[in-house]
Amino acid sequence: MESSNLNLLKDLANEVYFAVHPLLGVKKASEIVGSGFCGDKTSLIDVIAEKAVIRYLRQNEITCVFFGEENGIKKIGKKPDFYIIVDAVDGTTNSLRGIKFVSASLAISKTKCFDSLESSVVINLYDGSIYEAERGKGAYYRNKRIHTSNIQELQESIISIDISGVPERVESVIPIMKKSKYIRSLGSAALEICHVASGKIEAYVDIRNKLRTVDIAAGMLILKEAGGTVLQLDGKEFIDNLLVSKKRFSIITAANNYIYNQVISSIPLP
Amino acid sequence: MESSNLNLLKDLANEVYFAVHPLLGVKKASEIVGSGFCGDKTSLIDVIAEKAVIRYLRQNEITCVFFGEENGIKKIGKKPDFYIIVDAVDGTTNSLRGIKFVSASLAISKTKCFDSLESSVVINLYDGSIYEAERGKGAYYRNKRIHTSNIQELQESIISIDISGVPERVESVIPIMKKSKYIRSLGSAALEICHVASGKIEAYVDIRNKLRTVDIAAGMLILKEAGGTVLQLDGKEFIDNLLVSKKRFSIITAANNYIYNQVISSIPLP
Repeated sequence: MESSNLNLLKDLANEVYFAVHPLLGVKKASEIVGSGFCGDKTSLIDVIAEKAVIRYLRQNEITCVFFGEENGIKKIGKKPDFYIIVDAVDGTTNSLRGIKFVSASLAISKTKCFDSLESSVVINLYDGSIYEAERGKGAYYRNKRIHTSNIQELQESIISIDISGVPERVESVIPIMKKSKYIRSLGSAALEICHVASGKIEAYVDIRNKLRTVDIAAGMLILKEAGGTVLQLDGKEFIDNLLVSKKRFSIITAANNYIYNQVISSIPLP
Repeated sequence: MESSNLNLLKDLANEVYFAVHPLLGVKKASEIVGSGFCGDKTSLIDVIAEKAVIRYLRQNEITCVFFGEENGIKKIGKKPDFYIIVDAVDGTTNSLRGIKFVSASLAISKTKCFDSLESSVVINLYDGSIYEAERGKGAYYRNKRIHTSNIQELQESIISIDISGVPERVESVIPIMKKSKYIRSLGSAALEICHVASGKIEAYVDIRNKLRTVDIAAGMLILKEAGGTVLQLDGKEFIDNLLVSKKRFSIITAANNYIYNQVISSIPLP
């Protein structure tokens, strides 16, 4: 059952890839066509990507509750088998500008809660490479098992921080920027969390309270299965939260508890 | 004559691409094998990349003065026709970790000064796509003419900042981070300058006084030919500086003078 869900997610990811890849960096894709379920502006590329997912689910008679950035909640079929949580373009700004760091994020959960996440896939929309995980079965990138970095010191670490659009919080990340060896800011939360999962970076930090469940659900399962740590800014797990929700989050994702503790202790209390 | 130089740079860029692409993200490529001309640690991947350039120049009997990150100055042939300035792997940390933002930077100059730059190429080492320019003939990406962004306000801009490894200067970039719409930090100066040239971002800012001539020479010509602004932190042009030098630089590259002025006026005097 799990494997067929994972295969479904990979099929959906490839649908998005083929729909969206030709539009990356193309001007007309940036046309604003409305606003999404969570209130963010919707670009044409977002609509096309999410449509590709919903069309595939309908055509293949997959009975589920779909939850996406643009369309919100959609019940597909009569007796839904599971929830499917989708951000069909994660890193829309990058995709519109032609910055080659964009992903689609897809997760399946048995219930509407974070603690029931079963399978997830994050696909790099530039090259089609896939990060994937099933609960209890490890995480994989391009079909190879992945693990988080074993670096334990910030001074040796690459830390990615998203601080765009919240000038009042910039000061809060200065200590992390000063203590870390390398700072990155890449522009796609789902893909950055997968970079932590695969040992490419040691942490991804977003304290803006802007992330939605669709941005982080898939990456979180992949990161946990790769051995990483993911917590909210107050140190709480995500398990009690609803996946199908407009709630916004801050997130600290780290390769291990050593890095997590150094990151969290560097952030001044609000 | 110019065109044959540009073709030479493209051939060299492709040599590097084929030598290095299979090593991206591969562990053995990160082995430290010495230190380069400017004192930075040299990884195996840097050596292999630069060797590919020198081998091609020798095999094809290109008479020139080679200046590279690892080997420093090498006279090839008896009567050098020009200087060739090479950073064969720009973004070494990204390349070793598998972060897909890495380039090679190659420029040809008639003299050893910045003001004699004639042709340049920056190649994305993940997908082989090429940015190129010849003096007075415009800049191109994937054979299409490119121009910088016409956005004139920081509040609407994507600004990429490299602040890694200089904790004492982090405070200096806070005002830019607060005023800009989106912040990125991508990890390859040459490629980021080309992102400014092609309108993907509005500015690339590095005030660490760490950049070497090999990192910036090629990108600078491409940016200028695309209509952009490139100056040192004190507002000076680079024309009086030597290309063949161990000198380190800070750099502000911007889509236009409006963005440049907003960036420079946001940086407190040291």
